[in-house]
Amino acid sequence: MRAGVSVFTDGTNGMKHLRTLEDLSVDDVHAVLDLAHELKTRTKAGTREPRLAGRVLSQVFEKPSLRTRASFEAAIGQLGGTPIFYPGKDAGLGGRESLADVARVLSSYSDAVVLRTFSQQLVVDFAEHASCPVVNGLSDDRHPCQALTDVLTMQEVFGRDLTGKTLVYVGDGNNVAASLAVVAGMLGFRLVLLGPSSHHLPGEFVSKVTSTYPNAVVEQTEDPAEALADADVVYTDVWASMGQEAEKAAREKVFSPFQVNADLMAKAPGTCRFMHDLPARRGLEVTDDVMDGEQSIVFQQAENRMHLAKGLLVWLIESSV
Amino acid sequence: MRAGVSVFTDGTNGMKHLRTLEDLSVDDVHAVLDLAHELKTRTKAGTREPRLAGRVLSQVFEKPSLRTRASFEAAIGQLGGTPIFYPGKDAGLGGRESLADVARVLSSYSDAVVLRTFSQQLVVDFAEHASCPVVNGLSDDRHPCQALTDVLTMQEVFGRDLTGKTLVYVGDGNNVAASLAVVAGMLGFRLVLLGPSSHHLPGEFVSKVTSTYPNAVVEQTEDPAEALADADVVYTDVWASMGQEAEKAAREKVFSPFQVNADLMAKAPGTCRFMHDLPARRGLEVTDDVMDGEQSIVFQQAENRMHLAKGLLVWLIESSV
Amino acid sequence: MRAGVSVFTDGTNGMKHLRTLEDLSVDDVHAVLDLAHELKTRTKAGTREPRLAGRVLSQVFEKPSLRTRASFEAAIGQLGGTPIFYPGKDAGLGGRESLADVARVLSSYSDAVVLRTFSQQLVVDFAEHASCPVVNGLSDDRHPCQALTDVLTMQEVFGRDLTGKTLVYVGDGNNVAASLAVVAGMLGFRLVLLGPSSHHLPGEFVSKVTSTYPNAVVEQTEDPAEALADADVVYTDVWASMGQEAEKAAREKVFSPFQVNADLMAKAPGTCRFMHDLPARRGLEVTDDVMDGEQSIVFQQAENRMHLAKGLLVWLIESSV
Repeated sequence: MRAGVSVFTDGTNGMKHLRTLEDLSVDDVHAVLDLAHELKTRTKAGTREPRLAGRVLSQVFEKPSLRTRASFEAAIGQLGGTPIFYPGKDAGLGGRESLADVARVLSSYSDAVVLRTFSQQLVVDFAEHASCPVVNGLSDDRHPCQALTDVLTMQEVFGRDLTGKTLVYVGDGNNVAASLAVVAGMLGFRLVLLGPSSHHLPGEFVSKVTSTYPNAVVEQTEDPAEALADADVVYTDVWASMGQEAEKAAREKVFSPFQVNADLMAKAPGTCRFMHDLPARRGLEVTDDVMDGEQSIVFQQAENRMHLAKGLLVWLIESSV
Repeated sequence: MRAGVSVFTDGTNGMKHLRTLEDLSVDDVHAVLDLAHELKTRTKAGTREPRLAGRVLSQVFEKPSLRTRASFEAAIGQLGGTPIFYPGKDAGLGGRESLADVARVLSSYSDAVVLRTFSQQLVVDFAEHASCPVVNGLSDDRHPCQALTDVLTMQEVFGRDLTGKTLVYVGDGNNVAASLAVVAGMLGFRLVLLGPSSHHLPGEFVSKVTSTYPNAVVEQTEDPAEALADADVVYTDVWASMGQEAEKAAREKVFSPFQVNADLMAKAPGTCRFMHDLPARRGLEVTDDVMDGEQSIVFQQAENRMHLAKGLLVWLIESSV
Repeated sequence: MRAGVSVFTDGTNGMKHLRTLEDLSVDDVHAVLDLAHELKTRTKAGTREPRLAGRVLSQVFEKPSLRTRASFEAAIGQLGGTPIFYPGKDAGLGGRESLADVARVLSSYSDAVVLRTFSQQLVVDFAEHASCPVVNGLSDDRHPCQALTDVLTMQEVFGRDLTGKTLVYVGDGNNVAASLAVVAGMLGFRLVLLGPSSHHLPGEFVSKVTSTYPNAVVEQTEDPAEALADADVVYTDVWASMGQEAEKAAREKVFSPFQVNADLMAKAPGTCRFMHDLPARRGLEVTDDVMDGEQSIVFQQAENRMHLAKGLLVWLIESSV
């Protein structure tokens, strides 16, 4: 259980950032989602508007991530801007130069910066010294862009109002689960974490979410039948994220009863959809028949990373001009 | 001799691709070449038209290739679009995720994908799951973009109709030779492979080309005088491609009688031109005096990689909208 | 002391280049600076003009450099063009292919090429074979883009006419010092190098500068009080650049008396500004209180790398059309 998961960051420092979802108000979240829907519709109709022409998006990654990198690069490119990518060590993160100095300089060349870090604190520290919006592209504690993508996808399936829907997140109370709990609280749908209690979200964190967002319903259980009875979506993630390879065998043992397969899906209503934030380890956390089955919306969800990124970048950059 | 050389791939799967030249009809090849000529003329006149504005080209390379990467990046950039580049391992090829999943996701962010792979099968498999055009930027078996570039260059020198011209390819019956054999068959010029019979193209492959394209003339010989008597172009390539370093000494021994030097060029008509797809190992497969001599059009040919890429991308993307 | 520092390169080869500052006339320097000021003003007013739309900037780096890479990538992106980046080994520098061949091919795909090399000679050789402008992004001998950025920054603080101003460069007579000496000679301000005489600029080099530029005043001293009495700017750099890690301890010993700290700054007039080309090793060549103090303009200077790059690229590319 990571301590960081339970720490809410402070509000923004004047500039709009997305360090965690808590940087956004509920209205902000709806504004980003609405923009993303609108831009997706126009893209699908064949329109590529240079809405961010001449704008520069810098991405600095401490560890590789195809979907995060590619979705943001495509997003800024489709909008007429330019993506720049630096491996963390090339950008001098944690190296020969102070983080504050890197943040000051790189942000002065950029219209937005996406960071993909181990430490959530690095995102917070970088944003403190940045003169442009800073986005958490994935940290050990949070994954706000993924959670926003997931609700964008749910809105496509269920309509804009997600009140009363049930999302069952199966497996590890990790960074994705934490961000989903917050966005569920914001938008008023029910999040059920189904997994071993040893890997549930910290109670303190859940309390914080439920006390902050009046409509929040966050439940955690080890009982599949209880969790899945009213599921509108079943969602899972890899059991061992990058950096957790050492504990791979131990994690497989504790999570294997929670594999998303036909048996598990049969416990949910037949209309239930399946989501996964990818990459998937087919045969481990999910079986091929579920990944490729009729209930699966994983590739719609994956494509939506890009559409969400477009909505987010337009909102952040146009708000900060 | 690679088995893959003799395998023709199936037709396209609805979406236009360039996995091998056989994905294109003869009319398609002319359409791509005409576009490339037209776009080169306008570029040379100082025009940079945003014909692919907001379009995103993703390139995934299993091994480095300066010309392929740079020519495609410059091509999409000149046309107002955005290039994205991933080393194969960063894109998860052959790694933690299924190829089909990578193909589905990356193609959903892209308007075209260029792959530079060891295996031709990887290109075929990727295209099967892609929702955008997929281009073979170079595989162990084929090099269609190079062959199209070469005929573009020949058309600049000899005129659009190449019927009856003779291209002598000196050295190894490799991926470039295979693609040149196909395009020669398509456009009706004569291809002579001059090299050790141990490294000729497989007879089965040549038979397939000549039976598919009625005007095809593909000859293979070890005799320089016979090969070069009517040569309009002499063309050579490195003796050991990337990945063949282990066999370097053995290959140098078998190919050294076929070095393109002043003596060899003297066996061809004085009007004969020299081509090379680069990088050149000066002093091995070709001597400095030939590379830098008056008959050499190698740098015109190299620049044409970019112009061909522009024609190809416009054709693929505009056909697929 | 590097021999190369004292060698002036020849004039351009028809195409405009920035191999060293001596490639530019004094009028050229003013033209580049004026463009940079103008483009910065318009950018700050919110305008992003596609003045280099469809133009391609290639960068080839033998060693990493965040500021050089990022400032040029952002510059071409803000102007509507496309940046391409290659690590030196991927571009085949010093490897499997002749430098002349790499230069010919890469320049045929590019509207400008920025090189970041160890050897100044590599920049000269590359430019000799290039068909587009070539920029020295940093070599062991020179750093012309940094020196132009520094005078751009000084002009913002002191006005366009820098005649009679005094810049005190503290530390090593390195590539930055050499380029500052030339630009000081060109623009008629006084450069004082304060540091151990073992690391002063070669006398031959200084003589060449002062004989070439009639208004040049270049002084070298080990005496802080003498150097700083009339300082308008104090400027320092890291003691051990990349590649000098082996001599790190020896260099720290010889340079430590010249640390820029409150005591040293107190020897200069109170209106004196502090500059640093970054990355800074806080606590070594400069202390936190100076870096972050009121006299510091280091982050304005760092941001100006991008604005200078924009002025330079527009000037080089528009002059070469």
